Amino acid sequence: MKIAIVGSGALGLYYGALLQRGGHEVHFLLRRDYDAIMKNGLTVHSINGDFYLPSVSGHKAPDTIGPVELVIVGLKTFANNSLGDLIKPLLAPETQILTLQNGLGNEELLAELFGAERIIGGVAFLCSNRGEPGHVHHLAAGRIVIGEYQRRANVRLERIASDFTSAGIDCRTTVDLKKARWEKLVWNIPFNGLCALLQQSVDRLLKVPHCRKLVRDLMIEVITAANKQSLSQDIAEKFADGMLEFSDGMGEYKPSMQIDREEGRELEIQAIFRVPLEYGSQQGVGMPRIEMLAVLLEQL
Amino acid sequence: MKIAIVGSGALGLYYGALLQRGGHEVHFLLRRDYDAIMKNGLTVHSINGDFYLPSVSGHKAPDTIGPVELVIVGLKTFANNSLGDLIKPLLAPETQILTLQNGLGNEELLAELFGAERIIGGVAFLCSNRGEPGHVHHLAAGRIVIGEYQRRANVRLERIASDFTSAGIDCRTTVDLKKARWEKLVWNIPFNGLCALLQQSVDRLLKVPHCRKLVRDLMIEVITAANKQSLSQDIAEKFADGMLEFSDGMGEYKPSMQIDREEGRELEIQAIFRVPLEYGSQQGVGMPRIEMLAVLLEQL
Repeated sequence: MKIAIVGSGALGLYYGALLQRGGHEVHFLLRRDYDAIMKNGLTVHSINGDFYLPSVSGHKAPDTIGPVELVIVGLKTFANNSLGDLIKPLLAPETQILTLQNGLGNEELLAELFGAERIIGGVAFLCSNRGEPGHVHHLAAGRIVIGEYQRRANVRLERIASDFTSAGIDCRTTVDLKKARWEKLVWNIPFNGLCALLQQSVDRLLKVPHCRKLVRDLMIEVITAANKQSLSQDIAEKFADGMLEFSDGMGEYKPSMQIDREEGRELEIQAIFRVPLEYGSQQGVGMPRIEMLAVLLEQL
Repeated sequence: MKIAIVGSGALGLYYGALLQRGGHEVHFLLRRDYDAIMKNGLTVHSINGDFYLPSVSGHKAPDTIGPVELVIVGLKTFANNSLGDLIKPLLAPETQILTLQNGLGNEELLAELFGAERIIGGVAFLCSNRGEPGHVHHLAAGRIVIGEYQRRANVRLERIASDFTSAGIDCRTTVDLKKARWEKLVWNIPFNGLCALLQQSVDRLLKVPHCRKLVRDLMIEVITAANKQSLSQDIAEKFADGMLEFSDGMGEYKPSMQIDREEGRELEIQAIFRVPLEYGSQQGVGMPRIEMLAVLLEQL
């Protein structure tokens, strides 16, 4: 399959590298790492085993890639206003667009730009970060859950999942993408928010009982709002406890928003906080702690 | 009147200087400023007019002061475990103790140590800070409201208020000290907490509408908890709006907790947050934003 990676941060580089190793024709849209990767290739340091791609098809603009079968979007959501220009040159009539971005609102935007029928959404439970240019680190987890944006059952979704699985990616499909997105927010909202605000890694929040309780209170606010969104099934409160245990295994992991703050980038507050708050508010759900966390992050 | 100032930070130095200028025999217990004040005196830079005290009675320990008529306590509450040693040498049978410290729990502790009948509480609405050693800055406001801890009407309270007023201090009495304490918390909880957490002065919080709303939401949580504490009269919601307007006049003011953080001192979380949260919780009042703010401050 000919694949373009739009937004080659840690997530885009990691999954793209696995797909290339799995035999797919992968083209990476690169910025920071362009020179390093074109000169020295791409090195993946992974808990599942390191590997090295000596030759990578890197591009500075989408025009030199041309039409592909699958676009994988890993762009930071605060750069979403460039999605139109970046993706248009990659499209043929049958091109599918899979967004693995954080938060809510990304499928909606892509559907508006390129037509809802192309759009597939996915949530990645991946702990990764970039090292020096040309290196990406896979630290923990890695599962992707993908679903059709319009929720019609579709054989293409199974085909993508099957291709990903063959390439060594733990990929599941879901008939309820919206539920998967909200489940991801149960993690993203407390950990991205608090780690970025306090500039502390996951383990430091979890080891202080008062702070661990705050993380859980934030998770329960997400779950309460999620369960007013006409999901196929409610998210149980115990999902929060599972997430806490899952996070205990992450150690000194820094979520992407914490790294964004450290490196002086914009924060993904709109997609991870403001859009979910808006959906909650539309259903009359109070989310005082999440609202407060959003305000504090905006104030930084 | 022979007066001892225990805790000569900005508040203690400012009010002590006014009382000395007003003709009282004031003794300051000093640490940081001892050498500077003994050598060069004390300079007050005040919006009401600067003045200079060339000769000040400074002490490194209370023993050289001996018994006084009035002890004014301005110590940071995180140093409350030293109150016993600091105050004991200052006591004669009729000595009164006035605490102008922040938060809740200070009168209770002093009453336990030295007997409830001695204890007077006061809340100071004072914007001040210390400059270089030997200098104190009075930036805005300055009113003190004092009340008997045991709430028995008492002529000594009027005498203190009268002495303070003669010395140029705007001093009122109240029959409901508890209400005055909670009213002060309506300011202290949002501004001390948020300014310390975000390292931003008062004006920066107030000029962003979302953040101004968060300040007000925190104030309403304080008021709701206060009104379950058997006060003589409820605190109205519009008290919050008055506090916001009052704070608009403060400009780039840094609350004491923000300065404590900047200077690497402990924060007064126990007296300003944890004790009020405990009183709220005892009455079944939920204070999710205040609880969250306390956790975030403790996490720093």
